[in-house]
Amino acid sequence: MDQPIDTAWRIEHDSIGEIAVPAAAYYGAQTMRAVQNFPISGIPIWHHPSLLRALALVKQAAAHANAALGKLPAVKRDAIAAAARAVAEGQLHDQFPVDVMQGGAGTSTNMNMNEVLANRALELLGHPRGAYVHLHPNDDVNLSQSTNDTYPTAVRLAVLLEVAPLQRALDALAAAFEAKGAAFAGIVKLGRTQLQDAVPMTLGQELGAYAVAIREDIQRLTEAQALLCEVNLGGTAIGTRINADPEYGPLAIAELARLSGFPLVQSANLVEASWDMGGFVMFSGVLKRIAVKLSKIANDLRLLSSGPRGGLGEIALPAMQPGSSIMPGKVNPVIAEVVNLVCFQVIGHDTAITLAAEGGQLQLNAFEPLIAHNLLDSMKLLTNAVGTFTDRCVAGIEARPEMCARHMEASVGAATALVPLLGYERAATIAKEALATGRTVRDLAEAAGLTPDQVTEVLNPDRLALARRDAWRAAVDAAPGG
Amino acid sequence: MDQPIDTAWRIEHDSIGEIAVPAAAYYGAQTMRAVQNFPISGIPIWHHPSLLRALALVKQAAAHANAALGKLPAVKRDAIAAAARAVAEGQLHDQFPVDVMQGGAGTSTNMNMNEVLANRALELLGHPRGAYVHLHPNDDVNLSQSTNDTYPTAVRLAVLLEVAPLQRALDALAAAFEAKGAAFAGIVKLGRTQLQDAVPMTLGQELGAYAVAIREDIQRLTEAQALLCEVNLGGTAIGTRINADPEYGPLAIAELARLSGFPLVQSANLVEASWDMGGFVMFSGVLKRIAVKLSKIANDLRLLSSGPRGGLGEIALPAMQPGSSIMPGKVNPVIAEVVNLVCFQVIGHDTAITLAAEGGQLQLNAFEPLIAHNLLDSMKLLTNAVGTFTDRCVAGIEARPEMCARHMEASVGAATALVPLLGYERAATIAKEALATGRTVRDLAEAAGLTPDQVTEVLNPDRLALARRDAWRAAVDAAPGG
Amino acid sequence: MDQPIDTAWRIEHDSIGEIAVPAAAYYGAQTMRAVQNFPISGIPIWHHPSLLRALALVKQAAAHANAALGKLPAVKRDAIAAAARAVAEGQLHDQFPVDVMQGGAGTSTNMNMNEVLANRALELLGHPRGAYVHLHPNDDVNLSQSTNDTYPTAVRLAVLLEVAPLQRALDALAAAFEAKGAAFAGIVKLGRTQLQDAVPMTLGQELGAYAVAIREDIQRLTEAQALLCEVNLGGTAIGTRINADPEYGPLAIAELARLSGFPLVQSANLVEASWDMGGFVMFSGVLKRIAVKLSKIANDLRLLSSGPRGGLGEIALPAMQPGSSIMPGKVNPVIAEVVNLVCFQVIGHDTAITLAAEGGQLQLNAFEPLIAHNLLDSMKLLTNAVGTFTDRCVAGIEARPEMCARHMEASVGAATALVPLLGYERAATIAKEALATGRTVRDLAEAAGLTPDQVTEVLNPDRLALARRDAWRAAVDAAPGG
Amino acid sequence: MDQPIDTAWRIEHDSIGEIAVPAAAYYGAQTMRAVQNFPISGIPIWHHPSLLRALALVKQAAAHANAALGKLPAVKRDAIAAAARAVAEGQLHDQFPVDVMQGGAGTSTNMNMNEVLANRALELLGHPRGAYVHLHPNDDVNLSQSTNDTYPTAVRLAVLLEVAPLQRALDALAAAFEAKGAAFAGIVKLGRTQLQDAVPMTLGQELGAYAVAIREDIQRLTEAQALLCEVNLGGTAIGTRINADPEYGPLAIAELARLSGFPLVQSANLVEASWDMGGFVMFSGVLKRIAVKLSKIANDLRLLSSGPRGGLGEIALPAMQPGSSIMPGKVNPVIAEVVNLVCFQVIGHDTAITLAAEGGQLQLNAFEPLIAHNLLDSMKLLTNAVGTFTDRCVAGIEARPEMCARHMEASVGAATALVPLLGYERAATIAKEALATGRTVRDLAEAAGLTPDQVTEVLNPDRLALARRDAWRAAVDAAPGG
Repeated sequence: MDQPIDTAWRIEHDSIGEIAVPAAAYYGAQTMRAVQNFPISGIPIWHHPSLLRALALVKQAAAHANAALGKLPAVKRDAIAAAARAVAEGQLHDQFPVDVMQGGAGTSTNMNMNEVLANRALELLGHPRGAYVHLHPNDDVNLSQSTNDTYPTAVRLAVLLEVAPLQRALDALAAAFEAKGAAFAGIVKLGRTQLQDAVPMTLGQELGAYAVAIREDIQRLTEAQALLCEVNLGGTAIGTRINADPEYGPLAIAELARLSGFPLVQSANLVEASWDMGGFVMFSGVLKRIAVKLSKIANDLRLLSSGPRGGLGEIALPAMQPGSSIMPGKVNPVIAEVVNLVCFQVIGHDTAITLAAEGGQLQLNAFEPLIAHNLLDSMKLLTNAVGTFTDRCVAGIEARPEMCARHMEASVGAATALVPLLGYERAATIAKEALATGRTVRDLAEAAGLTPDQVTEVLNPDRLALARRDAWRAAVDAAPGG
Repeated sequence: MDQPIDTAWRIEHDSIGEIAVPAAAYYGAQTMRAVQNFPISGIPIWHHPSLLRALALVKQAAAHANAALGKLPAVKRDAIAAAARAVAEGQLHDQFPVDVMQGGAGTSTNMNMNEVLANRALELLGHPRGAYVHLHPNDDVNLSQSTNDTYPTAVRLAVLLEVAPLQRALDALAAAFEAKGAAFAGIVKLGRTQLQDAVPMTLGQELGAYAVAIREDIQRLTEAQALLCEVNLGGTAIGTRINADPEYGPLAIAELARLSGFPLVQSANLVEASWDMGGFVMFSGVLKRIAVKLSKIANDLRLLSSGPRGGLGEIALPAMQPGSSIMPGKVNPVIAEVVNLVCFQVIGHDTAITLAAEGGQLQLNAFEPLIAHNLLDSMKLLTNAVGTFTDRCVAGIEARPEMCARHMEASVGAATALVPLLGYERAATIAKEALATGRTVRDLAEAAGLTPDQVTEVLNPDRLALARRDAWRAAVDAAPGG
Repeated sequence: MDQPIDTAWRIEHDSIGEIAVPAAAYYGAQTMRAVQNFPISGIPIWHHPSLLRALALVKQAAAHANAALGKLPAVKRDAIAAAARAVAEGQLHDQFPVDVMQGGAGTSTNMNMNEVLANRALELLGHPRGAYVHLHPNDDVNLSQSTNDTYPTAVRLAVLLEVAPLQRALDALAAAFEAKGAAFAGIVKLGRTQLQDAVPMTLGQELGAYAVAIREDIQRLTEAQALLCEVNLGGTAIGTRINADPEYGPLAIAELARLSGFPLVQSANLVEASWDMGGFVMFSGVLKRIAVKLSKIANDLRLLSSGPRGGLGEIALPAMQPGSSIMPGKVNPVIAEVVNLVCFQVIGHDTAITLAAEGGQLQLNAFEPLIAHNLLDSMKLLTNAVGTFTDRCVAGIEARPEMCARHMEASVGAATALVPLLGYERAATIAKEALATGRTVRDLAEAAGLTPDQVTEVLNPDRLALARRDAWRAAVDAAPGG
Repeated sequence: MDQPIDTAWRIEHDSIGEIAVPAAAYYGAQTMRAVQNFPISGIPIWHHPSLLRALALVKQAAAHANAALGKLPAVKRDAIAAAARAVAEGQLHDQFPVDVMQGGAGTSTNMNMNEVLANRALELLGHPRGAYVHLHPNDDVNLSQSTNDTYPTAVRLAVLLEVAPLQRALDALAAAFEAKGAAFAGIVKLGRTQLQDAVPMTLGQELGAYAVAIREDIQRLTEAQALLCEVNLGGTAIGTRINADPEYGPLAIAELARLSGFPLVQSANLVEASWDMGGFVMFSGVLKRIAVKLSKIANDLRLLSSGPRGGLGEIALPAMQPGSSIMPGKVNPVIAEVVNLVCFQVIGHDTAITLAAEGGQLQLNAFEPLIAHNLLDSMKLLTNAVGTFTDRCVAGIEARPEMCARHMEASVGAATALVPLLGYERAATIAKEALATGRTVRDLAEAAGLTPDQVTEVLNPDRLALARRDAWRAAVDAAPGG
């Protein structure tokens, strides 16, 4: 089995038979088979560094626990741990060529890791690649483990590793909107419902509200993250802990928690935890929630910045690139648009995750690699899109106060403020007449019997937008009826 | 088994045992069990009259074929046919209480029909209800049939029956848009891409284009309909034609084609046809395509009619109801909105259909009742929404030419027309300067060396919108360079 | 305006003009217009009693708060409150004919309620219907309110009202699975991953795990419910509290909390709360999570009960109805199937909700009626399906221990237990040889050098399934190597 | 502007300002901006070679048409055409670094192509990169074009280019199933509906039916392809043909048809064609239809090969890799599983496409890059997955006739064949008794009065599976009643 390292290929074997592997490769027979079996997307698993990092940490933790239970010699433990740390830190990632689209419930990913760590550990111990008699991918690296517990544990951990970057990106976006909310707090404008003129508000209220929505999503991520901290490591094949010492799971998880910094605990029912994809479906639901809101916000910004002459034009987005290959001078909201694109993709990924989760059968879900790929891809897309959204769009939003004022003054939405004084039906008549005749709401309100002072107070846009209680009360109390 | 008809309940039995059925009911034991088993949605199958009509016609055709092959006496055939005609024409629909959400791959719907037709036929023959020794739901009404062939055939036919109403509704909508296209052919306005000012077009072009899109969808429906004309009647249980004379299927389908008016043919491979839901997935895809387009059109109309003072306001939709419980005089685009709602629902139904189709196993798809319910519901929703959209929204669209003109004149989109004369980069400089300084594109073009006549011709909005070749050529040929 | 009550129709008017309303109807002009505008699904809003109950409670709470602030006379408050209580208790529901598919962001539902309560209150006060000069749908019933705050508040409350029934149903289902888990704790069987023979477990572990999954979902519902307890009542039109006393919102919400029993609080940012559908998207995500799991469980039960002779056949589901119109004696898993159907529908509804939530614009989401309809429909479907699943399927599951034993004994999955003793590769050779030759794993293990006692202990299915530590340790410690 | 080529960077400028570009790069300013604006997925547009090929052909065709109309000198035409041919043939693809996730409706992709072709053409003409005064990306390469017509045209063509590979892959899969259908035509087995024992069929019928389903899909692709042959080239900005000679479009399309080999025609209404994504939605629907069927087939194969000892086990899939890191000897259906994964992804992509299509506004759909990416990705995934499915799974399916026979003989499904002789109810009694007592259907049928010869004939599985008319008729005619 030990091959001279100067040949181009070495021969390995597994239960299917012999297979040639590049002599220099750290991976082995089963990785090679997976590469041949799954020429699907062209995207290898190293596209998700957090997954490699997470799985390497699982292996390191397992080696620790196995050694503590006397099942793995210290020398092997140390070699495996050193190899795992290297992968966790980003080394050897080109040794993970298996396609993200893979059958086998993650076995190929797990074996790719087992093989790379075994060969790297062998190297550290002075053995040639493939000399598994000294340290074996299954019997040593995978000791006390099954794909069925290491892979779901690693996927959970990989998702956890991506939460903080996404939250940081969202936090920066919220801060950018808060800054705009403060900067534009004094700009009164027309609020709109169902795209129709409604009642006054400030541009600061409008943009600041987005920050509130985003901060809620950050909180939802924190909550959803907690559900992923329950892992099934130690359950082995189907959650019955076959071939694992009962003390192994808790020991390995404690070590994994220490290594990763997450408060991981073992699932209470390992049989259930082996097949249950509920945590992922839920987490994808949170990502979809974020996508739905971000898309809505991007839609709004595109709408508010429409024009510049023939649209709402109440804000201007920064010009990031020429907008058209034919229309000179056109500038498009390209950053907001790419946010929409990403959101639609995340929503599509949620559908794929749903089907994969629903399709699981009996003691395992064979489709977890799809769930992992889509979840991690969604998180990456969102994190990157939010980053460019903040830096190249939201931070540079400028108000166009003259357009805000023009729409505000032209609208008859202020007639709403007459309701407490005149009743709904008389106020409606005034609004209708103002639209039909072009007369102002003010004129018509005075014609309906209100005094100029009352009208001035009640129609004051600042008051309407901010709804200050004192002014409001005074005006209403002075009203003749209603 | 024969019960006195003056008791409130009669006792029937099936292979599960005895069960009480309302004495006056035309349905029997298996319907009763289904009612008890599926207290799910509260929506009975008579919610889809076309499904009852289709299945009744299948039974009538089967009776005809069985009699022709000497397997069913003429007297039974006539009684069954008379009962089936009654149901097909809309009678006895209250005798179909089984929930649309039902397990059993349609068996409960099929048995509900078998029982109602049997009891109505018994009545016509002078026997009391439940006297199945004279005419049996399974042995006579269901003779040579299985749910596995009658139900898919009936669902296909039911969908076919709903195509023409939907196409008629779409045709009327297209006609309404065509009328607007003609009426507003002379109103030049600003075209918009990515919500930003682009180049001129006419309002007639804009609204007329919707008609083109809708007419394409009508054509797609006709094509998709053709795929549903292949039916598996005669395949019985799993497509092997067990218990059916090989001549039966073709005979029954020919009769069904005659009764229904659709060019039905037997599937070439009945085993495949028994489980294949591809035709339904495809048809749902066409409905989704329609929904996507209708939703886009409704979105556009809401956008174009936004305002009336603080939005684009280039068209006005008819006011159908007061828009707000608090804002007097507000009128909202409620009809366009309900079109959006329906489209979103249809898209959701497509997801449900996809899951149901994917979930089929081996020789049958157990989830076809969900496919049937969602397809028929989508068609009903679309037909009704399109109807109200046409009558209460599109037909009443009014142009607001002054807003069209205002946006047109304010925009710098016409700078695009300078590109053939000045090149992209100089034209871009002009556009940018016009936006920054408020100077007109005309002024800046002349300052760049074009003659007033050239500018007049090249910036003529009518010409731009209509792209008349002769004028275009003359202006470009006279240009100095570019 | 006051019409003689003996005419068949009375004439009402609104800002659109006059309209005839059935003289006996409690609803009025705007309801009538909505009925005419939205002939879409044929499903009226009384299909969702919890929505009517919730909205009536909102009106009652609003009347209370308005009176407390001196804006509504006590006599009007009492009349409105009495009318609202009646509706909340289920009376007058036939007075809510507006279609669930409605444009207008819920305005038609809100006005339907305002009109019914106004006319019922007028009746209580001795006035004829339509005599709104005495008590007005907008000025009194809707006082200090907008559809934009009452409707979202009511939808949230309606969903909350449906949570407990769903949780009770899920709790009963979990209990049923727990009972089966206990009853079948001693039946050892083959666990399966990727549909391939894996390692031993007990039937009790398998069925009991479903209970664990379901109990987690109950907990998720409780958490998601908390998010819906934030309401925007008091925000009125766009969250700026126009026309509402700043003290009104807190007062009304406190009263609504008292009336409903839920710990409702006002959203911190009412502008954001007016348009944010995130809570609903999240809640739908939880329902989808439940659907995904239930569907998986139903799939498993159908698979485990497949046969009875040509399938896995390890359990038997109760026979609820004859399974086939052609195949005598066939019994199908119809209850499990209807659970699948419902789950697919819920997943489809989630797609519809996603689109509706994403489509909201600026200060309001016009599509909330679709969100409300789909959420409430999903909850109803799930609650009913879970109920019938528990009673008519899970509670009656019977074990078929002879089939469990047969599969267990035939499989070579137990070879996994040899890994700690012989290593992965030698164990694999044994497994392969056993499958190829028909020799038992036991024989081959002894041939490989293990003692009969070792083999007996290590292959003991009970031990394997239960993974008892003591036995496990003893056997492994006695092993020769590995 | 002309930079010495030995510097590391050259400075370009566009309407936004100056920007540094790698000196050696063929792309220019706008590509550089897009790279900076869209650091999203990490997947550049050269991930889709067919899109680059298609867009290059569009540019080549446009240059041809412009030259024919006297708008572009022959020397420029030839240089652009040479550059375009190179890209079409796969050269310079590393010059297309823009992310597939991009805002701007495809403008960045179009400009990336314009810049690369311009610089490559400049090189051919002996000018340095960036010397656009000699040949300009917009004024020459993009002459008479807009992103709004070139990009949609190129996306359609790119999809068309991928149809044949997918159809070839599907054809090979169908052929593989047909071969299995022929090889296993003589193996009688149990058909199953709703996972319950039904009636006999042959394994050849079962596997052969998949070929029929797949061949239908090939036909659907051909039909859907036809819809994509309508392109909007020549419509320029919004379909009004601004800046394009009216003769240009037809000329360019004719040339593009010649270059590509597809029967392309110009859309009848270019305004509509500029925004209508219906063709893509429809095409995605066809891909989803294929995915739904393939997933169902993969599910079936996994189910039929379940075991090998504790499942249905009627077929064996080829062993492609060790199945488990812990369970020695386990072999999993990994190729079928990866087919499922791909199908779920395609279904998810359809959701993303739906949202993108629905989100288009007014004269353009800004989200077409997402549609393009998802469509092309789906086609690639399907083509690759079908290829590995055929070669590594279906072609190697082996029958396990002994298991087929065992299930067939154990079942009571044959009782169905008694219905024509004894009626449904008596046959049901026999089936029930056979299951309960273990007595054979044959014995019970004879006890019910049939002769041994009748029973032998009617229960003959071969006859049942093949439903041969002659034998069937003889047996039924000889029956005592029914």
